[in-house]
Amino acid sequence: VSWSRAGVVELDRVDPLAQYRRRFVIDDDALVYLDGNSLGRLSIDTRDRVVAALDQEWGHSLISSWEDRWLDLPTRIGDLLGTTLLGADTGEVVVNDSTTIALYKAVAAALDARPHRSAVVIDEDNFPTDRYVVASLAEQRGLDVRWIPEAGPEGVAVDAVVERLDDDVALTVLSHVDYRSAAILDIDAITKAAHEVGALALWDLCHSVGVVPTDLHASDVDLAVGCTYKYLSSGPGAPAFTYVRRDLQAQLRQPIWGWFGRADQFEMAPGYEPSPGIASWLTGTPGILSLVAVEPSVALVAEAGVESIRRKSEKLTALAVDLYDQWLGDLGWTLQSPRDPARRGSHVTVSHPAARQAMADLVELGVIPDFRRPDGIRLGLAPLTTRYTDVYDGLQRLASVTPTRS
Amino acid sequence: VSWSRAGVVELDRVDPLAQYRRRFVIDDDALVYLDGNSLGRLSIDTRDRVVAALDQEWGHSLISSWEDRWLDLPTRIGDLLGTTLLGADTGEVVVNDSTTIALYKAVAAALDARPHRSAVVIDEDNFPTDRYVVASLAEQRGLDVRWIPEAGPEGVAVDAVVERLDDDVALTVLSHVDYRSAAILDIDAITKAAHEVGALALWDLCHSVGVVPTDLHASDVDLAVGCTYKYLSSGPGAPAFTYVRRDLQAQLRQPIWGWFGRADQFEMAPGYEPSPGIASWLTGTPGILSLVAVEPSVALVAEAGVESIRRKSEKLTALAVDLYDQWLGDLGWTLQSPRDPARRGSHVTVSHPAARQAMADLVELGVIPDFRRPDGIRLGLAPLTTRYTDVYDGLQRLASVTPTRS
Repeated sequence: VSWSRAGVVELDRVDPLAQYRRRFVIDDDALVYLDGNSLGRLSIDTRDRVVAALDQEWGHSLISSWEDRWLDLPTRIGDLLGTTLLGADTGEVVVNDSTTIALYKAVAAALDARPHRSAVVIDEDNFPTDRYVVASLAEQRGLDVRWIPEAGPEGVAVDAVVERLDDDVALTVLSHVDYRSAAILDIDAITKAAHEVGALALWDLCHSVGVVPTDLHASDVDLAVGCTYKYLSSGPGAPAFTYVRRDLQAQLRQPIWGWFGRADQFEMAPGYEPSPGIASWLTGTPGILSLVAVEPSVALVAEAGVESIRRKSEKLTALAVDLYDQWLGDLGWTLQSPRDPARRGSHVTVSHPAARQAMADLVELGVIPDFRRPDGIRLGLAPLTTRYTDVYDGLQRLASVTPTRS
Repeated sequence: VSWSRAGVVELDRVDPLAQYRRRFVIDDDALVYLDGNSLGRLSIDTRDRVVAALDQEWGHSLISSWEDRWLDLPTRIGDLLGTTLLGADTGEVVVNDSTTIALYKAVAAALDARPHRSAVVIDEDNFPTDRYVVASLAEQRGLDVRWIPEAGPEGVAVDAVVERLDDDVALTVLSHVDYRSAAILDIDAITKAAHEVGALALWDLCHSVGVVPTDLHASDVDLAVGCTYKYLSSGPGAPAFTYVRRDLQAQLRQPIWGWFGRADQFEMAPGYEPSPGIASWLTGTPGILSLVAVEPSVALVAEAGVESIRRKSEKLTALAVDLYDQWLGDLGWTLQSPRDPARRGSHVTVSHPAARQAMADLVELGVIPDFRRPDGIRLGLAPLTTRYTDVYDGLQRLASVTPTRS
């Protein structure tokens, strides 16, 4: 395929999701924003909801908003997210804390549920905070961390996990979509393999939620954690979600006991008694101005539908790969993402020795991708706001700023 | 003293802090809001800052705001708070996570720094989440928790702490101001006693920060944690602060390792290496919409000055006690706060068998205090927004809804 800009304009014209871009705050329509997987754009609904939380709920209604509006947000938003985007039931997802804190609680709870096992399987490709959380618990508990080596553009293979599994493994900690390559891991096969040795499977959904469909029940996932500020567009550092399969909830107890996770919280009674169900995964008072943003943001993704979003995402990344072939390969760039769209999440990473300078030059030309040290440029394609022409213009400008080989 | 409303109006007229009320969003001037210690009011500066974070920083500037505006917020706001309100230096305070998470990290780090000691001293009067955090770590590590029994209106006495201290105690966990009685604990004497047996002293400043001056250096405090949503008016569930005395920072290592606490965060390198200094107490991505609210809120308190705030606070609570004597004592109410203003924080608690019904009736009359089960009404007096006439009107209406004894 060789793409012309006119051909790409036509893709936008017939895009069934094109209308969603108008639901976002976009004051510079010419900006080519290709970093929606680091920070998703602000929707108008979300903007309005945060302002209402400020003015009406906090400013006007003051303390009464806790009971009237805020106390049930972590579980109410969890239910919305779980049932519309994760393939979970109500009562299995809660939204609270940062992704790092959520991971810490989930890993610790899983380890406690397998007290006679001392190994954790995780990959060197995993997002840093996942690795660091496991490292902290490994140091505290003397764990055997079984590292899967970096796997390159195609991501961690099922076999690489399986060969590290035995009956000393308590837990696997893997990301559904790799944060650099965008490789989609085989969540079904890996979860099944973990279960075959009696281990629990924890999945980090940060780079898949809202853009790659997941069915946590069908995949038999035990625990999942993810952030809401990428494809869910819930704002910088928006709180994370935690999924705990219902039949595990009685066995898994998270380690940080706080007043929001206690049964009969406002009795303020002596001793700790966890709330029933998923609410026991709460700890402290949630940051409401951040939390309120999640609900309308998730609702917008759910309205568009993750299956439709996935269809556009595959087309967007396929276009990026086509344009890589058309322009970038000959300029010394290397594709660091899978070629098979079915194996690829919603970003495409390319690398080049001159990537750092190219990144700076791109910003000057009104293109915002994400630089990944040492030499990667990550193009995050968010189907509700990224146009096909953004991909075309972004990659054309990337080609234009690449030094030609002398 | 017998107060007339005219006398109280005069107090407002000459109040040097009266002007600050106009800096807050107050759309119903008749509302008697006496719960500023549960949720402080929204200031105009804070409102504007959050809207700017939404519209300009997130909506317009997108990902570039991380580097330009957000990354250093936890330490920058920590420095502001530490140097203006806590008696700390720059580099000793960080703002992030919920109070519960901050407490968990601080207690765990202190226990790790005293590995051969197994006891913690804490009081039954302490705020629930402090007690639950200690209980979770006690269960995980088999600690000996030495509970100081409930101490009543005068709060925990120094002797009650001292008699539980010995060389097996790793840590004391106490609140500077009791959340029910408002009793101010003797932070200097208790910290000194803890140090004499080689224990660390952790102080919860939730009910003192911004209204009762603290000088953490002068008091030789090791660790302190506090919330920012009470007298600091930073919004519902606004992030907490953590203080770690500089000379302890090399010894104390918090247990939840995440990417925001790692040296050279964006290298995303293997292995965990903590950031130097107080930044090692960060963990995950902070919730920016909640975090940005803290800076202007703290700045406003610092502008008014905590010494001036304390002077008005003492007068407000003294007026409340006078009016209790004038109206409530004979109606069967009991004062549950210290009579000595120097021993009292900025709230006053009264109890009565019919308190629950009185609370409901007060709300109908436009008065918002805080009900504390089983039979307490807590009157939180926030000097930047609470008028002397609010105290008068609130207590007069409380008297009016109290059933007369038959």
